[in-house]
Parts: sequence; C-alpha cells; structure tokens
Amino acid sequence: MPPKKAAIDIDAIHKALANPLRREILCWLREPGRHFADQEHPLDFGVCAGLIDRRAGLSQSTVSAHLATLQRAGLLTSRRVGQWIFYKRNEATIQAFLDYMDGGL
Amino acid sequence: MPPKKAAIDIDAIHKALANPLRREILCWLREPGRHFADQEHPLDFGVCAGLIDRRAGLSQSTVSAHLATLQRAGLLTSRRVGQWIFYKRNEATIQAFLDYMDGGL
Repeated sequence: MPPKKAAIDIDAIHKALANPLRREILCWLREPGRHFADQEHPLDFGVCAGLIDRRAGLSQSTVSAHLATLQRAGLLTSRRVGQWIFYKRNEATIQAFLDYMDGGL
Repeated sequence: MPPKKAAIDIDAIHKALANPLRREILCWLREPGRHFADQEHPLDFGVCAGLIDRRAGLSQSTVSAHLATLQRAGLLTSRRVGQWIFYKRNEATIQAFLDYMDGGL
C-alpha cells in the first residue's frame, strides 16, 4: 500500500469529495463574504451551520451529516460559539491533498 | 450543483480513488513493463486480470470488484482476448480528472 499519506487521510478525503453538495460547500466556504454576507457574527468565526443549511436548501440533519463527513476528512474545522457552530475550510489539509494530487494517479 | 463535470463522473472517480488498493492498481498500470514484465501476452493488450490478482495477493473476486469500480469510474478500460481480460489505464479520463483537480477545491 502507498505510504504517501503523511498527516492527511487520502481515503477519507476522496470519500468526502465524492458528493456534489460537499464539494459545493467547500466552494462556498472559499468565499464566505460572497456567499454568506448576511451573517451577523464575524465571518472570521467561520460560517454558521444554519446559513449553510439554508443555502443548501436542505434539512439541518442532512447538511449536518455532510459537514461532519467533511470535518472527519479534515477538510473543515468547526468552532462552537454560544449556541452556534461555525465552519471553516482547513486550508492546510486542502493544500496538502492538492499537492498529493499533483503527483498524478 | 457544480456543472464542472464534462464527460467525467467526478463522484464515481472520487469513490473509486477512496481505496488504497485501487490507487495502487492505477499506479501499477502506469508502468506495466515494470510491474508485470512476466506477462506472456503483449502488454499493449493491457495487463491480464490474473496478474493483477496475484500482485495484489488477494482473491480473484475481490480484485475483480475493485477493477470493476475503477472501470465504472472510467479510470480503466478492459479488453477481452480469448479467455482473458486485460486492463489498461484510461489516460484521457485520468488527465481530465487531474485537470479538474488543478482548479482547486
């Protein structure tokens, strides 16, 4: 088996990316100011799960499962502030994965 | 949902790549002359499924399922010659996917 993993879980990342909504969420979080400009809390916290649900147009539980998959793969980080959970891209893992993919298949 | 697919099935490709043996098989088939030099048929046909099974050290049925997943994702093509099935990388799809990944996440 290939040892090329370092700190990233290639299997989990590919699984997480094998879904169009999960890829879309990553894409939205790339430009939170563009996609979530109406958030009351500072976007530095990340984007509130509720706003992601609303933008996806899907139930809280469905989107929550997708966010959890992205977070388990290391592609997102979360932070709880009061009653809210905010999500951000984990740029270090995303970049490490893209660097890995640069090596080809 | 993102329209960036063209002729390739991004979901299926990520699913196929979410397994270390499947990634390894793709890697072996990149250099068939190095990994399958003992094949009696010309390597232009591709690599015989039986040799891939042997190299993986797993049963025919297990490896066959992995090969089918790779083929459904468009990453491999197969060709039947007599009683044998030979597999090759589908470089066009692989390159299209790598180009897509170049766009970032």
